[in-house]
Amino acid sequence: MSDTTPASYPVDPVNRVKRRADRGFYDHETVHRLLDAGTLCHVAYVVDGQPYCTPTLFWREGTRVYWHGSNSSRMLRNLSDGEPACLTVTHLDSLVLARCAFNHSADYRSVMVFGRARPLADGAEKIRALTMMVDRFFPGRTAQLRPSTPQEIDATTVIWMDIERASAKIRAKGVVDDDEDYALPVYAERLPVRQVIGAPEPCPRRLPGVERPGNLAGYREGRLLEEAVGEAHRLAYAAPAADG
Amino acid sequence: MSDTTPASYPVDPVNRVKRRADRGFYDHETVHRLLDAGTLCHVAYVVDGQPYCTPTLFWREGTRVYWHGSNSSRMLRNLSDGEPACLTVTHLDSLVLARCAFNHSADYRSVMVFGRARPLADGAEKIRALTMMVDRFFPGRTAQLRPSTPQEIDATTVIWMDIERASAKIRAKGVVDDDEDYALPVYAERLPVRQVIGAPEPCPRRLPGVERPGNLAGYREGRLLEEAVGEAHRLAYAAPAADG
Repeated sequence: MSDTTPASYPVDPVNRVKRRADRGFYDHETVHRLLDAGTLCHVAYVVDGQPYCTPTLFWREGTRVYWHGSNSSRMLRNLSDGEPACLTVTHLDSLVLARCAFNHSADYRSVMVFGRARPLADGAEKIRALTMMVDRFFPGRTAQLRPSTPQEIDATTVIWMDIERASAKIRAKGVVDDDEDYALPVYAERLPVRQVIGAPEPCPRRLPGVERPGNLAGYREGRLLEEAVGEAHRLAYAAPAADG
Repeated sequence: MSDTTPASYPVDPVNRVKRRADRGFYDHETVHRLLDAGTLCHVAYVVDGQPYCTPTLFWREGTRVYWHGSNSSRMLRNLSDGEPACLTVTHLDSLVLARCAFNHSADYRSVMVFGRARPLADGAEKIRALTMMVDRFFPGRTAQLRPSTPQEIDATTVIWMDIERASAKIRAKGVVDDDEDYALPVYAERLPVRQVIGAPEPCPRRLPGVERPGNLAGYREGRLLEEAVGEAHRLAYAAPAADG
């Protein structure tokens, strides 16, 4: 793309891909692309020595990730002091059936980002984050909604974490067997897996004449969710120069 | 099903669902059903105070979960002493677009299981686990494969973790708005999301006459992955009385 060195996250013992190092990527472009194609992440954090792995919606802005929850959630209460966390997004692309058990595998694209998570303080930055929490998935939607009340804003905690380290790992090669095993009469296949959007189900209680707005057109039946979500991210951050 | 109290995991401060407690389940049936419908999990564990969230394939047998990796992986080396871990499986069912930002949500089914992870020692138990690692997804497949070599068995670490605590969390209600908001001319919908199987891609190097075996028939194009995986689990554990 360019003859300059692409931006990349630092590599050290925390995030270096150890197993199958050839599958590891650290550049911003790969890390951000995999994050932005994700709807759901899992966040690992520690409370009193006990690790927790919590699923949640999230989004990226520049080299920062955000997620949210109510003020009463265990994760958010315990991350208030800038606790170390790891946020992971995984796209499963296939199951791989090889000619021996050892070569059974899966194609996947995953990204782990590391940092210290903290709640956003009340104020303009929090209001903006609450807007992007919706608009990142559905660009322009917040402007179409009943405005948030002060009580709703107070009841929502937004967590932010600057990405200090990151690593992406990609396997995309289907069946790979030992050379001599290809001579065996064993059936092998790559079984693709996709996360797709179904037919939208309009709220049964919507008012007459209220139709699906055009800014949701990217979310259409049969499309890959990651395509729609990745496209929405590009649209949401295209207008302001907010994307780093 | 029965008039006896169903088996359930204990509830304590570690696993009690705090936020939206009405969505929490602790009974074996719910916890196991959600685990067995899962292909991929995320495991949280701690190394030198740094939490990691690692995606991996896994499976359940009774009240124990298993996963695996190579001996060189960071996670497996560090869990050798029975380190606390949390394994989470999440099924995303929809995105929910409501009439205000606060009521935007998602339908999902997730399960978190807690315990101490340890590697299986070499021997008959490890051999059996390596068989079930494949046969749990593809019942009967190991018998169709080139047998594993001692080197392959040595190179694979199987991790086991007895489920000490567990909690499942389910949201399955689509759009729910504040009563007064239904009067607003705002479009709202439930956007279903599904993880489906694509058309199987036979290995281009398979020998003439080697056809897809009948025991893979459950993995057919368009089917929900979780259905095929859940069915395979029932088949794999139906013959021996191994399922607890």
